[in-house]
Amino acid sequence: MSVKNIPYKIYLDESEMPKAWYNLRSDMKNKPAPLLNPGTHKPMRAEELEQVFCSELVKQELDNDTRYFSIPGEILDYYHTFRPSPLCRAYNLEKYLDTPAEIYYKFEGNNTSGSHKLNSAIAQAYYAKKQGLKGVTTETGAGQWGTALSMACAYFGLDCKVFMVKVSYEQKPFRREVMKVYGADVTPSPSETTNVGRKILAEHPGTTGSLGCAISEAVETAVSNEGYRYVLGSVLNQVLLHQSVIGLETKTALDKYGIKPDIIIGCAGGGSNLGGLIAPFMGEKLRGEADYRFIAVEPASCPSLTRGVYAYDFCDTGMVCPLAKMYTLGSDFIPAPNHAGGLRYHGMSSILSQLYDDGYMEAVSVPQTAVFEAAEQFARVEGILPAPESSHAIRAAINEAVRCRETGEKKTIVFGLTGTGYFDMVAYEKYHDGKMDDYIPSDEELKKYIAKLPKID
Amino acid sequence: MSVKNIPYKIYLDESEMPKAWYNLRSDMKNKPAPLLNPGTHKPMRAEELEQVFCSELVKQELDNDTRYFSIPGEILDYYHTFRPSPLCRAYNLEKYLDTPAEIYYKFEGNNTSGSHKLNSAIAQAYYAKKQGLKGVTTETGAGQWGTALSMACAYFGLDCKVFMVKVSYEQKPFRREVMKVYGADVTPSPSETTNVGRKILAEHPGTTGSLGCAISEAVETAVSNEGYRYVLGSVLNQVLLHQSVIGLETKTALDKYGIKPDIIIGCAGGGSNLGGLIAPFMGEKLRGEADYRFIAVEPASCPSLTRGVYAYDFCDTGMVCPLAKMYTLGSDFIPAPNHAGGLRYHGMSSILSQLYDDGYMEAVSVPQTAVFEAAEQFARVEGILPAPESSHAIRAAINEAVRCRETGEKKTIVFGLTGTGYFDMVAYEKYHDGKMDDYIPSDEELKKYIAKLPKID
Repeated sequence: MSVKNIPYKIYLDESEMPKAWYNLRSDMKNKPAPLLNPGTHKPMRAEELEQVFCSELVKQELDNDTRYFSIPGEILDYYHTFRPSPLCRAYNLEKYLDTPAEIYYKFEGNNTSGSHKLNSAIAQAYYAKKQGLKGVTTETGAGQWGTALSMACAYFGLDCKVFMVKVSYEQKPFRREVMKVYGADVTPSPSETTNVGRKILAEHPGTTGSLGCAISEAVETAVSNEGYRYVLGSVLNQVLLHQSVIGLETKTALDKYGIKPDIIIGCAGGGSNLGGLIAPFMGEKLRGEADYRFIAVEPASCPSLTRGVYAYDFCDTGMVCPLAKMYTLGSDFIPAPNHAGGLRYHGMSSILSQLYDDGYMEAVSVPQTAVFEAAEQFARVEGILPAPESSHAIRAAINEAVRCRETGEKKTIVFGLTGTGYFDMVAYEKYHDGKMDDYIPSDEELKKYIAKLPKID
Repeated sequence: MSVKNIPYKIYLDESEMPKAWYNLRSDMKNKPAPLLNPGTHKPMRAEELEQVFCSELVKQELDNDTRYFSIPGEILDYYHTFRPSPLCRAYNLEKYLDTPAEIYYKFEGNNTSGSHKLNSAIAQAYYAKKQGLKGVTTETGAGQWGTALSMACAYFGLDCKVFMVKVSYEQKPFRREVMKVYGADVTPSPSETTNVGRKILAEHPGTTGSLGCAISEAVETAVSNEGYRYVLGSVLNQVLLHQSVIGLETKTALDKYGIKPDIIIGCAGGGSNLGGLIAPFMGEKLRGEADYRFIAVEPASCPSLTRGVYAYDFCDTGMVCPLAKMYTLGSDFIPAPNHAGGLRYHGMSSILSQLYDDGYMEAVSVPQTAVFEAAEQFARVEGILPAPESSHAIRAAINEAVRCRETGEKKTIVFGLTGTGYFDMVAYEKYHDGKMDDYIPSDEELKKYIAKLPKID
């Protein structure tokens, strides 16, 4: 299928880089379900969303029809400082696995935020600046999104208020410091600075926080401060739109060498990386122009697609956000303390949820130690130390490649390597010391949270 | 001078990448002084050096005449996993500084070791493997070299024993963990595992170690274990040879766009990055084909070129290594605890020392807080969080660019951005908190150590 002389790394020229984001929703027959007002259960109108989000981003959020959105020049300028990201041929991994499969990975970790999150952060900061805002608020768990947003805000001279889940704030002081280098104001959550934070602290003194709680605090801070809006690093339609730059670059690079993938794999937390990577390929599949297998990989400890239900749910703990229809484990579900902070969200992007429900995509879940085993194999032969999140995709890609070795099939596998693991060495240490567990929630446990989902007519 | 449409990042195609290292010594009229036997003060013969170093590397070390050394295919294979590194046009920094100068930087930090050290590590591991050795030993201070060597050894299946300066071992647990992911055996130095370590511990109980001491332990371990040799990440001629890949790529990229630099700047600790970056340009200057200004930037707290003497000195504390003629502050000199661990060596590469002494190169020293100020400015506009070492070059480049703003000159500045600062957040935190000092040794203090230099006829 592929031509000869494929280099280890394919870098596009600046002239080949995408000039527009691709809106996957435009090609979906069944559109993702709309966000609902948590009080009225009616679809959120633009005016309502604009109280929380930047106006231009609300337009992108609600637009299910426009196929391409031009990327503004100011955003392209910044993209050029860290993009194109390389599409890498994993020659060394193929050799190590002794597989006939050809393995490629799109590496999004070659920037200081350490992940793909910067693709959307710079877009969201740009629209906030253009709207004349003073600043933005957000939450961060593992820290990639907070770092990315801090960098983007520093570039445009915006104030950036980050609510960082307290346990991460304390356990990842270096992540926190990176954000401070970029001038961000980082507050451990829950905090005394918001009503929702004070309420949670009063009810659960000593809590180490959660992503859902940090979201609630960030939203409250945005709506109660003049000139601020809230921004989010995953789940939302707008974020998947921005992240389509990953898939568009990947497709251009593959097309250049006449490579057609059979399987495309990505880790899935809120869905931003996977949604971005598969976007143009899924578009072809939806339009009947090509066929691919898409595999979402999630942690066995937080299996929203593989063991959740497709229903409307709250996005945050404080229930201040709109309701979203998604594969969910219930907004109260707190996953076991696994080490892929970016994959610990209870729900999944509405776009990906709809595509999965319609049968366009597969999903698998993998246990934690198997993920770190794959991470270490990958690091040793391919050089790059992967983030725990990204390593879920590595695990699934290796599994597919090993299957090819057994069947003799020469499949072409592409996976998303979303980030680096420099700030996750505590997790690697635990893996080495044999102190990592593989907690998998029981059916009983999952049922308990799913029973508490809001009832929507 | 330069043509239009220069991209933000210039990536060479694989076919344009260097196939041979360039040996700068071949073009030097005054060759660097030979290493001397510390007992006899006679030049070290190959047979003597081969007790400590790999045979092929000894050949490279002693060869002052061969202009090019072919890069073996196995090394090129690995280079392709992290090279070419980008040559970046600092458009955003130029704009921020409002300077007519054009600024470029060769970014060597886009690999898991976080620095340029991997260029030589993979070469040294390859020759060790080819010689049929079991493993190699080395020391590491800041940790970049140890990480790079661990990665290289994992790739070739060699055992890797790293002596890590105790204070770094304790303060940088994550660096240590990265090395363990790559299977290295990491020992805090001084240790009870060597004679020299036990001696130092007995004389200075509670010492936190030094690079000179870790070198002594690594050398002792290499010579007292069958099938092991010692490898070093800087200072040596062979290391500068391997690092010429930085300068060769840089020159090819600049030539492609018709860009001729006026000033080339690099930070200088042992000299491996600077020597590699300037190699092909210095070659042109030595051959009278072109002229450039070269600036070595060192910390004001460890000013070997700007305030040291050019003389034979010990390379290590235990005095087990050969004597090298170099700009030195004396092998007993312990610099103030600044945060650029890679620039805290008392001496400088013999090649660079000779070139500096012959007037082909300038040197400046910069105080620590001014370095971090430049680092933070750079991070905010160019995105990349730089290593403290690399930030010395940033400081000098910004100073030159500001001078251009004042004079109106449109100079072309190229500097080496050797690495990333992800593992240096303690230093950034100190800078933020105003707890960073700018200790500069007095003349009296320097004299004291220089007086103790060995007397060589």
